[in-house]
Amino acid sequence: MGELRYWEDFHVGDETVHGTHEVTEEEIVRFAREFDPQPFHVDPAEAAGGPFGGLIASGWHTAALHMGMFVRSQLLQSASLGSPGVEELRWLVPVRPGDVLTARSRVVDTWPSETNAGRGTIVGEHELVNQHGEVVMRMRVRGHIARRPRPGR
Amino acid sequence: MGELRYWEDFHVGDETVHGTHEVTEEEIVRFAREFDPQPFHVDPAEAAGGPFGGLIASGWHTAALHMGMFVRSQLLQSASLGSPGVEELRWLVPVRPGDVLTARSRVVDTWPSETNAGRGTIVGEHELVNQHGEVVMRMRVRGHIARRPRPGR
Repeated sequence: MGELRYWEDFHVGDETVHGTHEVTEEEIVRFAREFDPQPFHVDPAEAAGGPFGGLIASGWHTAALHMGMFVRSQLLQSASLGSPGVEELRWLVPVRPGDVLTARSRVVDTWPSETNAGRGTIVGEHELVNQHGEVVMRMRVRGHIARRPRPGR
Repeated sequence: MGELRYWEDFHVGDETVHGTHEVTEEEIVRFAREFDPQPFHVDPAEAAGGPFGGLIASGWHTAALHMGMFVRSQLLQSASLGSPGVEELRWLVPVRPGDVLTARSRVVDTWPSETNAGRGTIVGEHELVNQHGEVVMRMRVRGHIARRPRPGR
């Protein structure tokens, strides 16, 4: 795993590619049956005649797929303290079975907490890009992360 | 199911309670192992000594739980055309095993599409409230919805 990364180790402009994931019909339907059972997410036959001309992934599934890659690539090696929220999230292009999605992130802002000397905030712009080079999802998410422990503090 | 609801049937100020859901440790860990395997989401023992003093649900799981109730209560009975995105999402209070969450929504804005005469946008403010009355998540989400078909158009 290497050294744990703290708030001080992230800088505006840092870019990271987290990984790729091939989306299957099975996982689209499985997620949507539990969390978003609209016909165009769960029923391939009905979806074919629906507004997207076929089955597409729930937007919440798409966001979760990004998170899975981001956590395994970066957050597990960082002193993460969770997230207070998302500034904006856009679903730009439908995600379909067989799509191969690449997750990437860029640090767009950082600041130390005014109320908690042990913590800072990082704002990341996160994107998922499909095999055609289209950005299918873009979001700006705030993350809390521990500051590097200092001797004597 | 009754009559399908169209864009014209939603009005600013409309409030709906969608349902309640009791969160289990099993589902918190199952979701997070796939999509957000941070220790405070997947490992009860390590979570006990972590920043939240116990296991908490992934924020993406929390959002998906809201969506499940919202879709079953309202969206399946509406002419939904998907969502272009989220204006803002805040995770305000940790969600823990045993929490009973109630999902509710309020229409805060609506407008017809300028480019597509068959569609309008609805902005909903969505909240999840726990058994203590605390709002654990709040978000403003845009939805596309078909306009009511008119004879002769």
